[in-house]
Order: sequence, then C-alpha cells, then structure tokens
Amino acid sequence: MKIARVRVTPVAVCNPPLLNSGGLHSPYTVRSIIEVEADNGLVGLGETFADRMVLDRLNSVRESLVGLSPFDVNALRRITQSGTPPSGAEAFRFMPGSWNGNPTDAKIFGAFEAAFLDLQARCLGIPLCELLGGAVRQQVPFSAYLFFKYSAQYVRHVDPEYAEYDPWGEVLTVDQLVAEAQRMIDLYGFRSIKVKAGVLTPQEDVACIKALRKRFPAHPIRLDTNAAWSQDTARRMAELLDGDLEYYEDPTPGLGGMADLHLATGLPMATNMVVTDFDEFRRNLAVNGVQVILGDHHYWGGLRATQQLASMCEMFDIELSMHSNCHLGISLMTMTHVAAAIPNLTYACDTHYPWFTEDLLQGGRVPIRDGSVAVQNLPGMGVDLDPKALAEMHQQYLRCGLSGRDDAAQMRKFKPDWERKKPRF
Amino acid sequence: MKIARVRVTPVAVCNPPLLNSGGLHSPYTVRSIIEVEADNGLVGLGETFADRMVLDRLNSVRESLVGLSPFDVNALRRITQSGTPPSGAEAFRFMPGSWNGNPTDAKIFGAFEAAFLDLQARCLGIPLCELLGGAVRQQVPFSAYLFFKYSAQYVRHVDPEYAEYDPWGEVLTVDQLVAEAQRMIDLYGFRSIKVKAGVLTPQEDVACIKALRKRFPAHPIRLDTNAAWSQDTARRMAELLDGDLEYYEDPTPGLGGMADLHLATGLPMATNMVVTDFDEFRRNLAVNGVQVILGDHHYWGGLRATQQLASMCEMFDIELSMHSNCHLGISLMTMTHVAAAIPNLTYACDTHYPWFTEDLLQGGRVPIRDGSVAVQNLPGMGVDLDPKALAEMHQQYLRCGLSGRDDAAQMRKFKPDWERKKPRF
Repeated sequence: MKIARVRVTPVAVCNPPLLNSGGLHSPYTVRSIIEVEADNGLVGLGETFADRMVLDRLNSVRESLVGLSPFDVNALRRITQSGTPPSGAEAFRFMPGSWNGNPTDAKIFGAFEAAFLDLQARCLGIPLCELLGGAVRQQVPFSAYLFFKYSAQYVRHVDPEYAEYDPWGEVLTVDQLVAEAQRMIDLYGFRSIKVKAGVLTPQEDVACIKALRKRFPAHPIRLDTNAAWSQDTARRMAELLDGDLEYYEDPTPGLGGMADLHLATGLPMATNMVVTDFDEFRRNLAVNGVQVILGDHHYWGGLRATQQLASMCEMFDIELSMHSNCHLGISLMTMTHVAAAIPNLTYACDTHYPWFTEDLLQGGRVPIRDGSVAVQNLPGMGVDLDPKALAEMHQQYLRCGLSGRDDAAQMRKFKPDWERKKPRF
Repeated sequence: MKIARVRVTPVAVCNPPLLNSGGLHSPYTVRSIIEVEADNGLVGLGETFADRMVLDRLNSVRESLVGLSPFDVNALRRITQSGTPPSGAEAFRFMPGSWNGNPTDAKIFGAFEAAFLDLQARCLGIPLCELLGGAVRQQVPFSAYLFFKYSAQYVRHVDPEYAEYDPWGEVLTVDQLVAEAQRMIDLYGFRSIKVKAGVLTPQEDVACIKALRKRFPAHPIRLDTNAAWSQDTARRMAELLDGDLEYYEDPTPGLGGMADLHLATGLPMATNMVVTDFDEFRRNLAVNGVQVILGDHHYWGGLRATQQLASMCEMFDIELSMHSNCHLGISLMTMTHVAAAIPNLTYACDTHYPWFTEDLLQGGRVPIRDGSVAVQNLPGMGVDLDPKALAEMHQQYLRCGLSGRDDAAQMRKFKPDWERKKPRF
C-alpha cells in the first residue's frame, strides 16, 4: 500500500472574543486539515496549525509523501527535517526525539505522522487507540476550559467579523465566570475546571478560584496565567490559593522562575510554555522547574513522540496532562485516541472545543458527555470529513484573510496602547 | 482479530565450549519459542530466555492472552506485571518505561510484545521493520563475536554431551584467536570484531587485540571482559590499547567504576551489565558512567521499549549498540528488524548466531552475508517455524535436563576450584 494523494486544506472557524494574558482571540482561528489518501482509497486525517510558515512547509512537503508506505514514518521524518541545524548547535544529527530544537520540524512531522497513523489504523480496520497500544480507558476526560471574554455585542461594534451568536455573553467578573462554569458543566458534564487567568488582576483571579472552589467543591481546578505574574505575585497568590489548585500552570515566566516558585511554594508547576520539546525536557530534569507537563501532539512531534514523552514522564516522576490549542474535531479525536492509549495520562485533558460551534465532520460535532469524549470501535479516529463543510470552511479561510494568530494585535483594536507583557502583574 | 492460541515451547540448542570470565558455556543453551496465533490462523513468533523462572512466568501468563487483540500491548503489560513492587520502592505505579526495577516483568512483557508486533505485521502483510516505522537500512551489520574456547575433543572427555563436530578447535592463544577471526570473517564477511575477553590474563588479551588490529586494520574492534578487570588493571590496559578500541565494554564492575575509568582514560565505555533498564539509564545520566548502551529487546521490554531507548540515547547524547545473548534465528530476525528501524543504531550488532549449527526455521538457518542480515520484503520477521525442527529441539530440551545457565558450575567440571570473580584480574 502506498500513499497516492496528500491534501492540505486551510480552513477558518469562527472564534468567540476570548481573552487571555496575550490579548484577544480573533474572529477566526485558522487550521490546516490534512488528508493522506492511500492507493486503496482510505484516507488518514490530521489537523494542525495554519500559520503561514507551517502551511507553507506542509505544502512544500506534501508531494514528496506520494509513493511512501503510510507505515514509513522514518522516511516521513527524513523528508520533514529542514536539514538546517539551529544556530550554535553541534553538528546536525538525525534526532528522533529532540528535533534539534527546530519546533517547526516537529510540527510538520507530527501533523503528517498523526495522519499516517490514522491511515494505518483505518487500513487495519481498528481504532487508532488500538494501533497505539490499546485503550486503557474508553472515555477520555476533558476539563471545562473557562475564559474571560467580551460579549459579541461589544466587540462587533469594532470588528463585525465576530459571529453574532454568543450564548456566553460577557465574562469579566467573578459572578460571570461562575455562571460560565455552571453553563459549561451543565452542557458537557466536565468534572474538572481550568481557568485561563492573567486577564483581570491577580486578586480578582484568586477571588474567581475561591468562588469556583465554593460552587464546585468536588472539581479539581487548575489556573493558567500564561506567565502573566511575576515571581513575587505568583508566590503571594500561591499563599492565598493554598489547597485550592490541582496544579499551577505557567504562573510566571521561564523554567528558572518556575523552579524557584516550586521550591518556595511546594505547588506542582505545570507547563505548556517552558517544556515543549525533548531538549527542554532534558533541561527541566536539571532544575526541576515543572512537575506536570502538558503534552500536545501538534508540537511534540506526533503521537509516538507523545507516547515517548509519557514514558519519560513516568521514568522521571513527572506528571502528564494535555494541552489544547484552538482546534476542531479532528484534533480532538486524535488527542482522545492518544490519551486513551497512555496509561499515565491521568489528568483531564484541556480542550477549546466547546468554544466553537462549527466542525467539518460527517454527522456533525463530536459529542462530549459526562465531561468525556469516547473512543468508538470504528477504524482510525472514527470520524470522517464532510467535504461540503470542508469546502465552506476553506472559503471562510479565504474570505477572512487571516494567516496566523496575533492576539495582541486584535486586542489593540480595542485598546490601542495594549502590549503583551510577561509578566504583567 | 483476536488471539486464539499461545504456545511456549522450550528448546535446547547445541552449544560449543565457549569461555568467558563467568565460566564455560554448557553443551546446550535453552530458549523459549513463543507462538501467538490469531483467529485468522496467522502466527507471530518470539524467542527469549528459558530459565526456569522465565519459563514458568511465560506459561502462567500464556492463557490470559487468549481473546486479546494482538494490538493491545497495554493489556499485555497489565497482565505481565507481577504487581509486586521491588522492596524499598515507593508506592507501586504503572510504569511503561522502568518496570519498577523488576527485570523479569520486562523480559516476560518483551517476549510477548515482540511476538504481538510480529503478528501485527503479518496481519498487515508488511515487514516487521515497516511496522516499527520503516527500514532506514535493508542490511543490518553484525560483528564477528570472538570467544576463547576449549576444543570439543578436550571437553568431551569430561562432558560427552558436547557435540563432536567442532570446526573451530581450541582457541586459547593469540594465534588461535586470530585464526578464529579469519575463519569467521571468511565465512560471514563481518566488518567489525568483538572479543569476549577476561579469560586469559589482561596482558594476553591486549596481545590478542594488537594482533587482530594488525591482521584486520580496517575492522573496528571492541573488547568485553564482563567486568573481569579491576579499575587499576582496566586503566593500565587502556593505556596499552590506546587507539585500538571502538569501545571498551564492561571492562570493570559497577557504574561508578565505569564512570571513573571513563574520566581517567577518555575511552567510550559500553555496557550491557550496568545500564540494563530505564531506572539504570536515569542513574547513568547522573554519573556519565557509560557512553554506549548495548540495547537488547529481550530484557529492555520489547521492541517499542528498544525504540524508546534509542530516542533517549539520541536525546542524551549516548551511543547505541546491540547486545546478543545465545540465541536462535527468531531472536536474530527480531533484532535485525528492530535494528533496521532505528536510525541511531549505527554500530554493528553483536550476535552469537555463528556459534550454533542448528535452527528451527523453514528453509534452514538465517544467512549472514557481507557481515549483515537482510530484512526481506516479507510479512513480519520474514521467517517461519519448521514444526519438525521445533519438536526435535524440544525433545533435546527434555533430554538435556537443563533449566537455565550456569557457566561457573560448568567450568568447575573442569577446574573444581574455579570461582566467578568480579574483578578477576
């Protein structure tokens, strides 16, 4: 069996006006949809970023994959290596784990590798999680991912590209955030909560956590400021939050800062910012900066690399959770299948999925029930593309003109002097 | 597809009177042959140790595998975990990498995992190396594994179980060892040489290396004493051997001793004795005791674990070679396929295979040409069992009465006062 065709289709999905310490989400998120078609007609699916550089690299690699066996991920790796070592690095070496510190290589390889593996599983007629070693759980739990946000009504005065439909309304206060949590938990049954903080003041963030803790006493809560707090602020807030948090995600910038904070507070530090590849993993061993790593197959280099990360986390007594970028159902199902096959992925995974209303799958959106996504006993990731929806979302991509993500620029449409600061508080 | 039957057949293979620092090889080596049969009639093959404890565990697990998908290695792992943490360990955790330091668990899991993966590949109709990510080399190089040995004529006076046929004769001198090397290279085309030393005096071993270096100037040479030399001896011999060795394999006991020796000599230290699992890998990072790890899927926990070891070696700038235990063609082909799929396995692998004359494969023994074993474009590992040969070698197992390996006891049949000493010199 050989690969006969590879398609890469950029799409745009409507994005609500969510806030984070880096700015404001644009009216659209762009994603690349990957279809790897074998000569037997089966198609493996992948989804990844669609930033200009990523999309260009995906397209430049695409044709070279035709004729490969979908099992030959070693050939895929050779093809997707840019061959340019990062400046100052030692002689270039073929490195399965670390990608020589080139994060784009890992993204490009990982995007196709996931589609290759999905195609392998479809050819076998078995679920992707079975190909990955067998499901240790049939239901993969996700967390309620809470954002502060503007209302659509407010933002549309400045940027009419935002969708009018906005059942969530404005969320800029403690009460509004608790209401958002309640609505999200009512809709999807989530059993743990993640708060994207660093938008309001640290004191307001703490008040939100306290209110959520009171309203949802059985739900573990994680706090993520995207490095918006200084060491000192993060330490003071940790004292106020003592006992309230499941883990403290990127409260403060830098691996060294996280290490100091862990030493000072004893709280488990989690990250998707300072340990994002195997080189950083190695550095973390030296300083014990983070105790929980949020894996993400989109940038760790695919599904086998995510499993390797998991094994190494076990080996070095590091906990494993899962990061979410803004994504559609293909990414969600890929995340679900790899999470189902990783024994030590014992935290609920993050997902942005509830914030979107569209998808491009046959049969509509992926259901989240009891806070979990189920792996089905279907070939591969168990979902298929709806060609009509794909075409429409591709048209939306062409119309919207976005070729990446710039939350700071979007924020400046509303607050012209706004700047990204790490730390802000 | 489900597993319908699992067979474990202990066999014995005739073994010549090879010497090492631990004693003398018995007239037979015992091995377990594993057949994992799916409900579609296809059979995945595995081969591993047949020491009593291993064989008992293989048999105790065997029936529990019936009904599993051959893709469900996570279920295999649960079933093969003894559930007993090693004494003094922290709370038991499900650990894919390190096996909680229980080497038997890793052996049992790895034996079946290799057969599961072979069965997966056969079901797919693709070579095992393709399932493992694709061949980066079609020919896998092995080294000429030189042993000092008694002649069959000599040993048969004391133990008539040794086979009469012995084309190698006595090898106890420099000239005899060079002749052995010449014969082995003439027969198989090997392009690198491994010397099992620690039998003669260190000065004689050094003289052998010097003679081999002169006779085979283009062949990299590795020396393995199985920790027979003291720190001081190993350091003095290293000075004499300066520039002659590819790597220095287990010259002296202990990870600390290896670290000191590396620091003193600058020679790359290799091991299959002090870094044999992921816990020891972690310890090695702290002391830089060895710079070359000899992987072995038989005890590292199978083929995916061997690939994980390879990735970690890349990540931590450790070189990777491959260890051989006394083995037949199934192990040889499994080693060959996993080696073919590992980019950074750039050393010739070790193999005892030329020392045996029997095998239990259809079509006879695996050919070694130009020092390499080829991966064929056939399903799985590309070889099948000959049921008649299997039955005969099982009868040989029953007749010989051996249930493990005790080189020291065998040696005492010839030298009653002989004792294993680490270090001896």
